Amino acid sequence: MTPTLQLAFDLIARRSVTPDDDGCQALMMERLAAAGFTNEQLRFDDVENFWSRRGSEGPLLCFAGHTDVVPTGPEARWSNPPFEPKIIDGKLYGRGAADMKGSLAAMVVAVENFVQKHPNHKGSIAFLITSDEEGPAKNGTVKVVETLEARNEKIDMCIVGEPSSTNAVGDVVKNGRRGSLGAVMKVQGIQGHVAYPHLAKNPVHLAAPALAELAAEVWDNGNEFFPATSFQISNINAGTGATNVIPGELEVVFNFRFSTELTEDDLKRRTHAILDKHGLDYSIDWNLSGLPFLTARGALVEASVKAIKDITGLDTELSTAGGTSDGRFIAPTGAQVLELGPVNATIHKLDEHIVAEDLNTLTAIYERILENLLA
Amino acid sequence: MTPTLQLAFDLIARRSVTPDDDGCQALMMERLAAAGFTNEQLRFDDVENFWSRRGSEGPLLCFAGHTDVVPTGPEARWSNPPFEPKIIDGKLYGRGAADMKGSLAAMVVAVENFVQKHPNHKGSIAFLITSDEEGPAKNGTVKVVETLEARNEKIDMCIVGEPSSTNAVGDVVKNGRRGSLGAVMKVQGIQGHVAYPHLAKNPVHLAAPALAELAAEVWDNGNEFFPATSFQISNINAGTGATNVIPGELEVVFNFRFSTELTEDDLKRRTHAILDKHGLDYSIDWNLSGLPFLTARGALVEASVKAIKDITGLDTELSTAGGTSDGRFIAPTGAQVLELGPVNATIHKLDEHIVAEDLNTLTAIYERILENLLA
Repeated sequence: MTPTLQLAFDLIARRSVTPDDDGCQALMMERLAAAGFTNEQLRFDDVENFWSRRGSEGPLLCFAGHTDVVPTGPEARWSNPPFEPKIIDGKLYGRGAADMKGSLAAMVVAVENFVQKHPNHKGSIAFLITSDEEGPAKNGTVKVVETLEARNEKIDMCIVGEPSSTNAVGDVVKNGRRGSLGAVMKVQGIQGHVAYPHLAKNPVHLAAPALAELAAEVWDNGNEFFPATSFQISNINAGTGATNVIPGELEVVFNFRFSTELTEDDLKRRTHAILDKHGLDYSIDWNLSGLPFLTARGALVEASVKAIKDITGLDTELSTAGGTSDGRFIAPTGAQVLELGPVNATIHKLDEHIVAEDLNTLTAIYERILENLLA
Repeated sequence: MTPTLQLAFDLIARRSVTPDDDGCQALMMERLAAAGFTNEQLRFDDVENFWSRRGSEGPLLCFAGHTDVVPTGPEARWSNPPFEPKIIDGKLYGRGAADMKGSLAAMVVAVENFVQKHPNHKGSIAFLITSDEEGPAKNGTVKVVETLEARNEKIDMCIVGEPSSTNAVGDVVKNGRRGSLGAVMKVQGIQGHVAYPHLAKNPVHLAAPALAELAAEVWDNGNEFFPATSFQISNINAGTGATNVIPGELEVVFNFRFSTELTEDDLKRRTHAILDKHGLDYSIDWNLSGLPFLTARGALVEASVKAIKDITGLDTELSTAGGTSDGRFIAPTGAQVLELGPVNATIHKLDEHIVAEDLNTLTAIYERILENLLA
């Protein structure tokens, strides 16, 4: 049992279902304090967070993550109880093994190893840990970042421990995320009888050419790191169920996953321009759930790519695919942000697990990145 | 109380909610037998129908109608009980007053008056009465017409007592009806996650240009008697409700109301051509609920227009607007078919009623048409 696996066991054994922390952060802070870190608890409403730092110089390399986990689902359907971590056939089972208590353990142990070898390392090392990543994400990372910004404390580089890998630890690193902009549109017509179309206005007929144009629009061509921005209608509904009634309203729910080539305002403006051109009587309720961010090639990317290659032999893939993460709150400060963690195949599922040895590999990768940047 | 109003009372008092006849037809046949008609009961499954004829020569003028009525809705919300006919402020209240027991009473009394004055009238007079017009219309008029066709008994002219009038009895006569062709279309895509559009195929996006084209298509320009054929989408549905899932299937329910300028096959062929051009993977379940029919100017139209003018002073309007009626089953035999009945403002509603005096006027119109054609 390596130090990383032992710490992962201790963290998984705590029932920190979001937004509960259940003592995980205290355990981490105890270890970090012993390694020369200064801890700062930052509680916002019912959410535990902490900021921990070693060193006062720049550059500041921060490890970010969360101690909360998603609910287990029916515990009886787990092969092994979700909060009783166990290694079976070389795989570590437990809620949070992959997302992301395994990463937290690897970070802490990597830092312990590094500072033991380099007590007078360059720059600073920090931890930004929340227990509100799997929930509403209102009182977690975003609030800690606000606190740091208010006192002008600047993160230069940040490694988020989200499970970024696909088949083997380190095979994929997320160096950004697309933005996500949702919309609920209502198009007004005038309800009537199918036999008297001159007395009605069919909102489906009125909207169809506009929807066709929105679907055909090339919003951008993406860039080196982002696929082209995509528009998708997820739901469309109109009609009373009766076959002889022209509906009075059409509801269309759609979503943009967008690159750094355009902004939220660009998307809204161009959407309205198309709808207005077709003379529709409509309203839209917009919902921005995340701005896109990108960490282009630079010190953090190079140090990480090299560390992965040295430790695992893999040529890692830089990707911006997938859903959102707390990286979206840190990147806007100007920090370089990467997500690097274990294989994500079983996250949020029953019997969440990872290859146990992968956590030792991840520890070595994190430590090598520290070596590459701050030794 | 005139004979027409008395008979209307007697018919409305019978609770003949479709498909029940509740003795209405027996009452009518008794009166017609006394006027020299030969009655023939034609029961199909649970539906009462009768055919009654006076005379053996041509031309055969037939009065057609139904004794069944639509359900009352909550009886407590009627100002007066729906099956207790009553005249209040000159208006006859009761379920079926307008649709169409009032017409049935007017037909019977008009014929009684006519044969009393012209016992040796030209041609023949007939009644084709069903109790399955407001229901599925499977065992009513359509079956009686089949019976007549099978024995080569030919209706030359037919007056359907449907409430055709808008503001005053006789102001509108229906000399045809548009056809109605319905369709339920399913367009196939591939369901997937909004964040991974390259792994999915959005059926809403695929179908939108085709729907726009169907909505914009000029199917025909109508003709003297018919408005242009109209295409209407009544229902459109796709989506799981979740905002991050691309739907796998789109369902579109649409309906054509079509003129005599094109056929059912024309509509299907042209619809498929548009859908195929857009390369959609789709299926359509077609449902023809009525072919269009038209009775152009001729003996029946002229006799009716003149009778209405003479009795009411109104220049009647010939119209093919509105929903379907049992005329669609009679017209294909080659008969001239007109719909002529009272004001339809309250049909199928709570507190169904008509101006009581209108039934006497309608009786006079029917009698005058008989005079014009068979005296």
